[in-house]
Amino acid sequence: MTESTKYLLSDQEIPRYWYNIAADLPKAMPPVLHPATGSPIGPGDLSPLFPMALIAQEVSTEREIEIPEPVLDVYKLWRPSPLYRARQLERVLDTPAKIYYKYEGVSPSGSHKPNTSVAQAFYNKEEGTRRLTTETGAGQWGTSLAFAGGVFGLDVDVYMVKVSYQQKPYRRAAMETYGARCVASPSDETEAGRHILAADPDSTGSLGIAISEAVEMAAQRDDTKYSLGSVLNHVLLHQTVIGLEAIKQMEMAGDEPDILIACTGGGSNFAGLVFPFLARKLKGQGDYRIIATEPTSCPTLTRGVYAYDFGDTAHLTPLLKMQTLGSSFVPPGIHAGGLRYHGMSPLLSHIMNLGLFEAQAFPQLGCFAAGVQFARAEGIIPAPESNHAVKAAIDEALVCKRDGTAKTILFNLSGHGNFDMQAYADYFAGKLIDDVHDEAALATAIGELPKVPAAQIAG
Amino acid sequence: MTESTKYLLSDQEIPRYWYNIAADLPKAMPPVLHPATGSPIGPGDLSPLFPMALIAQEVSTEREIEIPEPVLDVYKLWRPSPLYRARQLERVLDTPAKIYYKYEGVSPSGSHKPNTSVAQAFYNKEEGTRRLTTETGAGQWGTSLAFAGGVFGLDVDVYMVKVSYQQKPYRRAAMETYGARCVASPSDETEAGRHILAADPDSTGSLGIAISEAVEMAAQRDDTKYSLGSVLNHVLLHQTVIGLEAIKQMEMAGDEPDILIACTGGGSNFAGLVFPFLARKLKGQGDYRIIATEPTSCPTLTRGVYAYDFGDTAHLTPLLKMQTLGSSFVPPGIHAGGLRYHGMSPLLSHIMNLGLFEAQAFPQLGCFAAGVQFARAEGIIPAPESNHAVKAAIDEALVCKRDGTAKTILFNLSGHGNFDMQAYADYFAGKLIDDVHDEAALATAIGELPKVPAAQIAG
Repeated sequence: MTESTKYLLSDQEIPRYWYNIAADLPKAMPPVLHPATGSPIGPGDLSPLFPMALIAQEVSTEREIEIPEPVLDVYKLWRPSPLYRARQLERVLDTPAKIYYKYEGVSPSGSHKPNTSVAQAFYNKEEGTRRLTTETGAGQWGTSLAFAGGVFGLDVDVYMVKVSYQQKPYRRAAMETYGARCVASPSDETEAGRHILAADPDSTGSLGIAISEAVEMAAQRDDTKYSLGSVLNHVLLHQTVIGLEAIKQMEMAGDEPDILIACTGGGSNFAGLVFPFLARKLKGQGDYRIIATEPTSCPTLTRGVYAYDFGDTAHLTPLLKMQTLGSSFVPPGIHAGGLRYHGMSPLLSHIMNLGLFEAQAFPQLGCFAAGVQFARAEGIIPAPESNHAVKAAIDEALVCKRDGTAKTILFNLSGHGNFDMQAYADYFAGKLIDDVHDEAALATAIGELPKVPAAQIAG
Repeated sequence: MTESTKYLLSDQEIPRYWYNIAADLPKAMPPVLHPATGSPIGPGDLSPLFPMALIAQEVSTEREIEIPEPVLDVYKLWRPSPLYRARQLERVLDTPAKIYYKYEGVSPSGSHKPNTSVAQAFYNKEEGTRRLTTETGAGQWGTSLAFAGGVFGLDVDVYMVKVSYQQKPYRRAAMETYGARCVASPSDETEAGRHILAADPDSTGSLGIAISEAVEMAAQRDDTKYSLGSVLNHVLLHQTVIGLEAIKQMEMAGDEPDILIACTGGGSNFAGLVFPFLARKLKGQGDYRIIATEPTSCPTLTRGVYAYDFGDTAHLTPLLKMQTLGSSFVPPGIHAGGLRYHGMSPLLSHIMNLGLFEAQAFPQLGCFAAGVQFARAEGIIPAPESNHAVKAAIDEALVCKRDGTAKTILFNLSGHGNFDMQAYADYFAGKLIDDVHDEAALATAIGELPKVPAAQIAG
């Protein structure tokens, strides 16, 4: 037997804290604003939707936030996740590059999402919540919250973007297996949903619309709170177990990455891998080139603007300063449903605008080709979202081959594609195209960005 | 953080050899007979279908058979597989029993099957085979061989039982992702398939029919060989990595199982877990109660007879002495497609008839209920086949609860259910029934067992 291909930690080596990058940023984030007043919002504005523990994490500047024991006990079902050296892929590519990937597909739902759903369900349970509502795109988040709700005895209602609900019926079955209820969005259960359906009965939905529905339901009921699978600071915080583990595992492998890669929808899987490494970079302890990858059909980082916008379509959320395509922008129905969001984590947007990482956009056909190449070499069929990271990693490895350089690449394989086989079937049947967004619709959506009221303070 | 929930070995700790139980049996197996002469078959009879290395393993009595380096290198993509202590399930059941499970769902295809597909593809490649044919029931085996063929550069043609082909379209997409061709069986590509379709154009197929098709295609072409995912000695041999690892992992956990459980279709996942423990039992080093579980709709061990029969429906195979329901028996189209085989591994049948393990049959509704209970506690949604083991493990744990005994149960969770969500959707929609086989058809099938020609020698 020759070299190792994977680096494993025992379940006693799960990180005991999450890493909060807010403690180390050279400049603080712009505030979240109340849309009516333009004033920064406070905990009281968020308390109808979130438990106080999560609101505290949202604004915390403490560097290390302890992971509660009951959360660690559930994490142990799949964490620490493995770090792989992609030796078979390196051989196929004939590249001098070393390719590593952190694999989050070992979780119950098959993605990184349970890292935060378990934490959120725990804090809600602690504060007496009986029911959680949420939205889901590709279905990974809904499945993840369904699982976590089941573990802690909470009811879970999931509003699933209709195009994904139709493309991925088995995701619904998975949510039901975990005991949750799954509803196609837009639905007639909410004002927001009925409003959209009145204007367009054939609406395929969007994450923005589904968020509106889930928020509306939570705001209406005392025993119900809302849970978000990405975008917010506390969500990104919970994902940092990925990078904290990866740092230990790269040490086990005796390597240090030159290039870090992850795909971005709302930003949490990217942040999860990257923030702990970024902490080292900010302290001068490591020099990493960091690449966020996204679809050209929903190019939030590469074509969006950095501005205050609503997080949802119905304009129920506070105003968030973020990279955005405009909340009325509806991306084409690509299979990477988890990347179809008009906005981006405000924290990640801030960090990108501080010049701390770069972004690349890829059309979907090249991403599927990369995913198939990866599957044939490494065995794992990646989620369509994760293919955006696979594509960039392969591209960088081929640059190394061309230039004769031996860089070390680490990417986050955020999930498997077992529930996305219709996408692969469509790809093989030649049914997929390189969807691009409607430029006129993008211009319109950006033109409709909200005017920020005068009372706003400087960021 | 409290107790560990999983016991991991590094990829340097993969067993270096497979364990061959033929070396330790108190009585040798009955011979495989040529159907025309009744004489034991020799290597020459098998060489049109299998490479010589596998034929040698089929008849070997060597205790330890070295795993080739290139096979170990591919095993490292997912092996050693984790051993879990099901602490959350124990809590939910409120049982004094300790429940452990070995989880084979971490493989590329999500089941134990690649343990042998990789080995078989390797030996075929070594001996110049260009193409492999095979059959698949639930699709796990076909996906596994597709993956292995891709890794070693072999073409793979998979004949998939039609009922599963229809129920599990995404399995086909997975096979194509790995580069294989997948055909619904019975097909019009073979004499065997055309014969069945002429008699019953709506045939839902069976493993027996699909085997006939794959064998026929392999026998016709010099560059093509046949690959079987279960039943044969060399297949069971390759699966023993499961039990060899589990012994080490139970030592890590500081426990020794009292009860071993695995489901049986052709017998390989059961043998994989059990044989290395059985070796200890035969040497008086361990006293295990060993339970094979199967569906009541295809009760090969609990209702079949121990007799010479054909392995396939078209009677192209040699005669195998095994537990059988008769080769003309077609079980109901239950979702546990991998358990729908009329026969059973001759080696396993022999060992059962030596009194070394017991068998239990379960209706499917109770198995799904057990699978859902397991998923909500442990996060993993089991394959419908694996649910037959989960059911027995939960039953034994509840016996412990009733009796106040703290037995240690170890079962093989042979695969995940990510590709079987239609089964769960049907279960939740109330569409599943406790299918039972047709008693008259069973009696007829057993009545049609072949007469063994006079030249047969004593077993």
